[in-house]
Amino acid sequence: MISRVMSAELAEHAGQRVTIAGWVHRRRQLKSVSFLVVRDRTGLAQVVAAGDLPPEESVVQVTGTVTDNPQAPGGFELVAPEVEVLTQHWAAPPIDLYRPVVGAALPTLLDHAPVTLRHPMLRAPLEISAASVAGFRETLDRQGFTEIHTPKIVASATESGANVFGIDYFGRPAFLAQSPQFYKQAMVGVFERVYEVGPVFRAEPHDTVRHLAQYTSLDAELGFIQDHRDVMAVLREVLAGMIESVRHRAAPALDLLGLALPEVPDEIPVVHFTDAQELTSSDEPDLAPAQERWLSEWAEKEHGSEFLFVTGYPLSKRPFYTHPDPARAGYSNGFDLLFRGMELVTGGQRLHRYPDYLAALGNRNEEPGPYRGYLQAFRQGMPPHGGFALGLERWTARLTGAANIRQVTAFPRDLNRLSP
Amino acid sequence: MISRVMSAELAEHAGQRVTIAGWVHRRRQLKSVSFLVVRDRTGLAQVVAAGDLPPEESVVQVTGTVTDNPQAPGGFELVAPEVEVLTQHWAAPPIDLYRPVVGAALPTLLDHAPVTLRHPMLRAPLEISAASVAGFRETLDRQGFTEIHTPKIVASATESGANVFGIDYFGRPAFLAQSPQFYKQAMVGVFERVYEVGPVFRAEPHDTVRHLAQYTSLDAELGFIQDHRDVMAVLREVLAGMIESVRHRAAPALDLLGLALPEVPDEIPVVHFTDAQELTSSDEPDLAPAQERWLSEWAEKEHGSEFLFVTGYPLSKRPFYTHPDPARAGYSNGFDLLFRGMELVTGGQRLHRYPDYLAALGNRNEEPGPYRGYLQAFRQGMPPHGGFALGLERWTARLTGAANIRQVTAFPRDLNRLSP
Repeated sequence: MISRVMSAELAEHAGQRVTIAGWVHRRRQLKSVSFLVVRDRTGLAQVVAAGDLPPEESVVQVTGTVTDNPQAPGGFELVAPEVEVLTQHWAAPPIDLYRPVVGAALPTLLDHAPVTLRHPMLRAPLEISAASVAGFRETLDRQGFTEIHTPKIVASATESGANVFGIDYFGRPAFLAQSPQFYKQAMVGVFERVYEVGPVFRAEPHDTVRHLAQYTSLDAELGFIQDHRDVMAVLREVLAGMIESVRHRAAPALDLLGLALPEVPDEIPVVHFTDAQELTSSDEPDLAPAQERWLSEWAEKEHGSEFLFVTGYPLSKRPFYTHPDPARAGYSNGFDLLFRGMELVTGGQRLHRYPDYLAALGNRNEEPGPYRGYLQAFRQGMPPHGGFALGLERWTARLTGAANIRQVTAFPRDLNRLSP
Repeated sequence: MISRVMSAELAEHAGQRVTIAGWVHRRRQLKSVSFLVVRDRTGLAQVVAAGDLPPEESVVQVTGTVTDNPQAPGGFELVAPEVEVLTQHWAAPPIDLYRPVVGAALPTLLDHAPVTLRHPMLRAPLEISAASVAGFRETLDRQGFTEIHTPKIVASATESGANVFGIDYFGRPAFLAQSPQFYKQAMVGVFERVYEVGPVFRAEPHDTVRHLAQYTSLDAELGFIQDHRDVMAVLREVLAGMIESVRHRAAPALDLLGLALPEVPDEIPVVHFTDAQELTSSDEPDLAPAQERWLSEWAEKEHGSEFLFVTGYPLSKRPFYTHPDPARAGYSNGFDLLFRGMELVTGGQRLHRYPDYLAALGNRNEEPGPYRGYLQAFRQGMPPHGGFALGLERWTARLTGAANIRQVTAFPRDLNRLSP
């Protein structure tokens, strides 16, 4: 490796001559003195220099003496430097990466993502995202879950016939998986408790601020539950674990973005779908985005919670594998979790008896043929089970207050965007 | 949750009346006494019963008194049981899941994977796989790497024009990503050190025991290296971390399969490609599978190592982004890692200067146009960097001694197989 100390470690080397390496974040050449700010993966370091300095985004190695200066980032700077250019640059960056606030429009940022993501404010959400996933896994690992990897190329659509990408599979038609639903359920028969972190694909024909054609789905599924409330209890632990992980692993990103993390109440408030309808004076069979926003605000006011469970969605509005509410005809043991005005998680108890699957498909006038592989698991005994799926990018957007999900996705894919 | 103790915890409850839950792994009804073996995610528990018992793969809950019996799995069994069937089954399993050895042919096992994976011998490799991935992440997290998630739908092929799946992307042609190569390199400009665990797609037209159309790639990439040897040093730590994780997290699976884990030497032996050619009396520009096997045996005999680095592959045989060996014209800073007779990892130092990319593409008569998004990162300064990719299923197959990679893949995809 190139021998160096990190910018965040300068304080430990006060008075010593050290080498740092990174990108020229900013150069300022004044009449009597010049400054170089060097960016590495831990932060920024100021160098007091003289004469000509390499331009922004050059990669440099700087050897200098660590001197305290309360005005410098981290309280220390390098003086009497020798600057070596490791790699020059061949073009000016598409935006000024050193400006504290990003002013460019979203399309510009996305078109130049390989460069614009270097901006600390644009990188920070991805640090929060990585920390969130680590917390998701950590929580489930502790509870005896096993990580799985399932096929993304499938013979038939999983969720519904719409919104599915077709693929030429060695001359045969196939599809990109819209979710690992069938596989994670089958794997409950193997491991009882499983999770997967992976891409899912939706051919969303609408250009909205909250949909992507590919997103990262955090999926969990577990057996031997009583009903959906056991799934909701696991989800509550997962959310708390993700937030704790962000607090510990992404503290600099939180500071930079000036974010306060939400509290996860010991008991997340729960409202039944029919009560949610009543509260919002609606008789539609599903909740519209405006209703979700209203309910979120209500939960905040009434229960002091930024999270709200809505349970008991009408069976007709949930996938065929959803377990009915045994106490209330027409309603299901399916739930959504709203977070800061938006549906973040969908989950529920699933059917587990083979005849129930055949009946559910029959009710929707679907043949069991295309589901033959999936149904194998249920012809053998399957325990009562359920699970949930959380969209990582949507989570990160809510956490960081991003208005558009694309702001927190490294290289988003949508109706119009296929590169970079 | 259904209130229960796990089968592996019976010893802690000796003399007590407890409830277990799981699948009927085996029932044996003899004249005077009957046995039920119940399988849960932690192992097997024996129940001494009488009368009619539910058939294999029914899901049951059994309350009984924990009694020691040296012949029972774990040294304890349940007596005086009350057996409740939670879910019956609707068909006999396609194979006898209770037999210690799996006799069925591979196609039968794969056709019925949602059920056959319940067999402890078939589940065990997936436990080893999950533990390996945990070790991969753990090692890199400790070294300041950041996890990323990159697009699996891309506008142009990443590795070569062949072996790529086409997809209809909102009416436009697109492709499934053959690797996260371009994105992980771009993200070195953002985070310096990144990794990704995710699916990659290869339209392999050959039906071999070591190729899949989708596999899980463990990718890492890091900046501020001197050359490829820094990448090899990180890879050595990763391999050691994966093996340690398997030892700690998948001990029961190792026991069940009777496996000995390999030692990772402090210094994995290294042979230059030209020396490898000489040793195997070859003058081909690449290593054939038979040569890889021979070299692996040689490393074992000469160096006592099951791992062997082959460095300096001819530039013409490596992708255009490969960094040349500055000391040896025509050869590269690319390497492979052989493990137990097979290429397991490909890696190397990459080009980092923009003009070098233009020249490398020019040498191959390729236009820079399709690589425009990728090349953006290099028009700005990029540090010397490199990385590697390890195929998870191939790793697990080598570790478990599976002759066919499909034996250790939950739901493999290949030329002929698209389901279940």
